[in-house]
Amino acid sequence: MAMELNLSVIYAFSFLTTAISFLFATYLFFWVKKQKATNETIIRISDYIKSGANTFIRKEYTLLAIFAGCVALLIFVFLPSPVWMGSPLRNLEMALAYICGTIISALAGKIGIVVATSANSRTAEAAREGIKPAFLVGFRGGAVMGLAVVGCSLLGVTAVLALIGDSTVLLGFSFGASSLALFAKAGGGIFTKTADVSADLVGKVELGIPEDDPRNPAVIADNVGDNVGDVAGMGADLLDSNVASMAAALVIAESLDSATGSANVMMVFTYAALGLLASVIGIASARIGKKGNPTRALNTSAYITSAIYLVLTAAATALIKGFSWRIWGAAAVGLAVGVIIGITTNYFTDDTKPIVQKVARASNTGPAFTILSGISYGFISAMPAMVGIAISALAAYNLCAPMGEGYAMFGISMAAVGMLSIVGMIIANDAYGPIVDNARGLAEMGGFDEETIRIADELDSAGNTVKAVTKGFAIGAAGLTVISLLGAYMAEVNQALAEAGKPLLAGFDVMDPTVFFGILVGASVPAVFSAMLILGVDRNAQRMVAEIRRQFNEIVGLREGKPGVVPEYDKCIDLATTGALRELIPAGLMAIIVTIVVGFVGGVSAIGGFLLGNIISGLLIAQFMSNSGGLWDNSKKYIESGEEGGKGSDAHKAAVVGDTVGDPFKDTAGPSINTQITVVSLVASLMSGLFAVFSLFG
Amino acid sequence: MAMELNLSVIYAFSFLTTAISFLFATYLFFWVKKQKATNETIIRISDYIKSGANTFIRKEYTLLAIFAGCVALLIFVFLPSPVWMGSPLRNLEMALAYICGTIISALAGKIGIVVATSANSRTAEAAREGIKPAFLVGFRGGAVMGLAVVGCSLLGVTAVLALIGDSTVLLGFSFGASSLALFAKAGGGIFTKTADVSADLVGKVELGIPEDDPRNPAVIADNVGDNVGDVAGMGADLLDSNVASMAAALVIAESLDSATGSANVMMVFTYAALGLLASVIGIASARIGKKGNPTRALNTSAYITSAIYLVLTAAATALIKGFSWRIWGAAAVGLAVGVIIGITTNYFTDDTKPIVQKVARASNTGPAFTILSGISYGFISAMPAMVGIAISALAAYNLCAPMGEGYAMFGISMAAVGMLSIVGMIIANDAYGPIVDNARGLAEMGGFDEETIRIADELDSAGNTVKAVTKGFAIGAAGLTVISLLGAYMAEVNQALAEAGKPLLAGFDVMDPTVFFGILVGASVPAVFSAMLILGVDRNAQRMVAEIRRQFNEIVGLREGKPGVVPEYDKCIDLATTGALRELIPAGLMAIIVTIVVGFVGGVSAIGGFLLGNIISGLLIAQFMSNSGGLWDNSKKYIESGEEGGKGSDAHKAAVVGDTVGDPFKDTAGPSINTQITVVSLVASLMSGLFAVFSLFG
Repeated sequence: MAMELNLSVIYAFSFLTTAISFLFATYLFFWVKKQKATNETIIRISDYIKSGANTFIRKEYTLLAIFAGCVALLIFVFLPSPVWMGSPLRNLEMALAYICGTIISALAGKIGIVVATSANSRTAEAAREGIKPAFLVGFRGGAVMGLAVVGCSLLGVTAVLALIGDSTVLLGFSFGASSLALFAKAGGGIFTKTADVSADLVGKVELGIPEDDPRNPAVIADNVGDNVGDVAGMGADLLDSNVASMAAALVIAESLDSATGSANVMMVFTYAALGLLASVIGIASARIGKKGNPTRALNTSAYITSAIYLVLTAAATALIKGFSWRIWGAAAVGLAVGVIIGITTNYFTDDTKPIVQKVARASNTGPAFTILSGISYGFISAMPAMVGIAISALAAYNLCAPMGEGYAMFGISMAAVGMLSIVGMIIANDAYGPIVDNARGLAEMGGFDEETIRIADELDSAGNTVKAVTKGFAIGAAGLTVISLLGAYMAEVNQALAEAGKPLLAGFDVMDPTVFFGILVGASVPAVFSAMLILGVDRNAQRMVAEIRRQFNEIVGLREGKPGVVPEYDKCIDLATTGALRELIPAGLMAIIVTIVVGFVGGVSAIGGFLLGNIISGLLIAQFMSNSGGLWDNSKKYIESGEEGGKGSDAHKAAVVGDTVGDPFKDTAGPSINTQITVVSLVASLMSGLFAVFSLFG
Repeated sequence: MAMELNLSVIYAFSFLTTAISFLFATYLFFWVKKQKATNETIIRISDYIKSGANTFIRKEYTLLAIFAGCVALLIFVFLPSPVWMGSPLRNLEMALAYICGTIISALAGKIGIVVATSANSRTAEAAREGIKPAFLVGFRGGAVMGLAVVGCSLLGVTAVLALIGDSTVLLGFSFGASSLALFAKAGGGIFTKTADVSADLVGKVELGIPEDDPRNPAVIADNVGDNVGDVAGMGADLLDSNVASMAAALVIAESLDSATGSANVMMVFTYAALGLLASVIGIASARIGKKGNPTRALNTSAYITSAIYLVLTAAATALIKGFSWRIWGAAAVGLAVGVIIGITTNYFTDDTKPIVQKVARASNTGPAFTILSGISYGFISAMPAMVGIAISALAAYNLCAPMGEGYAMFGISMAAVGMLSIVGMIIANDAYGPIVDNARGLAEMGGFDEETIRIADELDSAGNTVKAVTKGFAIGAAGLTVISLLGAYMAEVNQALAEAGKPLLAGFDVMDPTVFFGILVGASVPAVFSAMLILGVDRNAQRMVAEIRRQFNEIVGLREGKPGVVPEYDKCIDLATTGALRELIPAGLMAIIVTIVVGFVGGVSAIGGFLLGNIISGLLIAQFMSNSGGLWDNSKKYIESGEEGGKGSDAHKAAVVGDTVGDPFKDTAGPSINTQITVVSLVASLMSGLFAVFSLFG
């Protein structure tokens, strides 16, 4: 009964799925566009936000284009082997693949911004008619982003492999996507938290005016930040994980297939395409009742997508010749663990659960206790995810090991592909958050009635809850992806060693001091990287706070809210932009340069250890920062809902300090670490040929 | 010219050195005792402190005796192999060695308490006569502790090996010392920070009364805490590293010597004994001029000790047959790196350096920025030490690898022994801190004149500066020690595998998913462990704050300082004691139990990974916590010295929040992690025989 297919059919199927997702995304985009946008205040403010976001994106992309151009040139000269030693054509392919990767990533970010800045005002207006239509506008706005990102990544990977037919070049493409994501995430993250933190600090804390009050000069910058940080940055981040997981799986699959046909490569594409299809169906089916619960609606559609994915891939595995149930099992394990990590993360950050409430209670004794308890629970919260990733890797490995040599690592890479299969849906849920957050702000600034603001609030709170879950999911996926990238790295190293006529590596032994050296250095990189980003926000916010204070002091009537007096929103946006652009390069560059130095000093074994150390401490710190940030945010909101003395109490003041500390944790440093790990892994794989030949002590 | 010595001579030399150190310690103790103690107020308060400390120690040791008894029983039944399978005599030896280890550790703590609680009041009185005599009393008090600790550990290790002649039993002895240290450190750390944090919170922050004000009901508990946490706990911690480094080196040396005589075992003892001798000389030569700088005096004596050590060991290496210059080189590298780590740590925590000042400046914008910048620099500060440890391990390995198989790992273990050689001096410097801190408090409470308090302040500030350096040193030493424990673990595993007729392990390959599983789980343990301790302090301090507030509200005239009205100091001491005892067991037990579970689930390979993960994240988190805690403390003091608005300014309030967060970081969690890593490594080595035979997937 099994169908015998060849690669061309699978490529065609991949392209077809991409086409479907783009068509559906286009339909949803125009559906969002045709929703009502009539309120003049809102249109005016929304235009401010749109133009602010576009200014930032334009400036950021200009800077990154120069950076990417330089890197592309370096790639052309040196990778995969120096141009004077290998073939110039292959180097050219690699450089072009890199550029395509950066373009795809930039495109995904840009699409996200366009749709999010259109959907926010329309969601706000729809909220006047009830939660049902408002939810749909917000969600469909996010869905455009989700479909576009996953469509772009599948299209890119398929095109590169179909045209060039060499998975090593795919690593170049993936590096392009990741390196842009790294800087976009860092830049956007710094922008958004600069604006958010300083707006809160002067507005809420010093002057006691409400969030999103139009008198606050930083309020527009804050809304712009939601779009450039959370929408564009997060999209680039998940695009990067998605592409990297496919690239790693394909590198391993290709090395397995060289003996046995192309079943494994076909399987990677089929599973990825079916994941996109499942997301399309899941998105199309998302609905909410008139009195419905938006959190439940978002979660339900994620579960539906997962179920559809498992059924579709099971069918494909049963029908297509050469597809293995063991691999399907690995993908299923990955997906299941992703969901479990999401749920445990939720336990630590949901305000109906005990942890958030404990931190709120500790806030009664002062901010030091808010911080201490939040940091402690943040550290504890890392354990379930670490153990979950460990168990899924172990399970996938053991499931697939009996298939023959090399299949164990392929199993792990397919667990990552499985976990990321529903990423279209995940991005849709995640992008929904900043859209409704913006909508809430617009409703406030537009002077809408209380019921509308309450609806907007409810939508916003669902966005926050779901965000914690999707973040846990993203970190889990990154964890599995980088493990398989470690496998891809070893495959690349051994290919290079074989070409150089050197003995192959059997693995990376912890007792080898070169490996150990790499591990210790690698482990300190994410710590320094995240610290640099946080210090960037810190410096930038200090400047911004000074500017906001200046405006309140110098602009007559602003503080009192005299009609007609508007703050200079532009100045704040400019300040956040300039600052973010200044801070976004150093941290990412540090991570890349340390990798290269370790490689040329210690050689391929040191880099193996380096990647391991980087993954371990990166996962730990990323979980710690994302979760403690999330739980401070929610314990502040919990207090604002009237618990522990409510707004204005000492506990609330302490919780605001916690939230301010948590902001750059959860929205700047934490999620950037994922990308940092991926970038470093890809740099290592791409340069493995050089490290194998040139190194001081290797 | 080379002398040919045998083991008996070396053992005799070891015992002789121990005797010298004990004699000198006794002399110093009586010298301290005979210093003036005449002021009645001070004597009364000092007696309070002494009796509080003794109460805590008695209760703590009672609890730990029960715990140690249970563990000894388990050891007798199961280790090194189940009593019904192996030889009961060997199990008995192991259990007895374990008990001796716990006794030695408890003894070191007790000696420290006795001398510190005598030296504090005498230092305070000596301060009336100038900085020179006061420094000497404080320093010599600390020196008694240093000499006692190192003497005890050398005596114990020599006795165990001379009597039983089996280095595996030495691991049992070391485990005894470490397990007691783990709980003593955790218990003392929780006690001291409970008292410190809550005394500051109610006294300084809420009521605005000075530190060490006798009206504060927690002030005695705070002083007791300095003794039980910093003196006894720290002594147990360094004793544990010292014993573990010798045990690891001896296990490896014995496996090398089985072929070639006993030169390596002799070398370990000779170097350790010469280190103690160097410390004796260094301590005897410590002086300060009339207007001298106490920080410089402390540092100078540490450098002198290092130089003497290098000269003495070089002489021994030149004179004694079979001693190798390569091994000497490894020890010298270890010592040099220890000093370098101390110096870089100092850069991050010294208030004359830019980092502390930057954090102080950030405090102007509010406590959130104090926290954010402190956490960031704390993370960055981990890098130099990580890289330093990595480089010293690599250098020691490469220096000794040419000597033959197994010598590379021996080199690393001798680097650890070298780094810890001057530990007697280090402990003396470290114990000086809490003594002069107490003395400062006593001078304040005794109503001494301003000049005396200024002198006490200067001595105290030197204690803080030196403490940061010695902490960096302790962490570096623990890092190298646990690397060599990893080597000892592998030696034990292969012995067990050989006995069971199973194939030997070549190493721990990162690409092996069982190892990887262990790494991920191991990496999350120090995070959870430190979080549990911090939450313990948190809970305990909340109770204490309530009690202090109650006393200020209920005891008439206390707030106003009416003559004759004294707070109920006892209640606070009891509260801190009960709380600390309740919180001290769970965290340590968690670390041990997870180790055992991972071992029985994943077997010896998983444990190899587990230890690695534990070391990596443990070193990272320990550095992060110790250094950020130190820099918050000093940036608060920097502001109090009049910078950034001085005492009472907004920056100061923010800095106090930072200091409160930093307290349990630097004095509870951070330094306990060292011990946690050592304990886990020793449990793994001791149980390796069981894991090799019984495991679910191993």
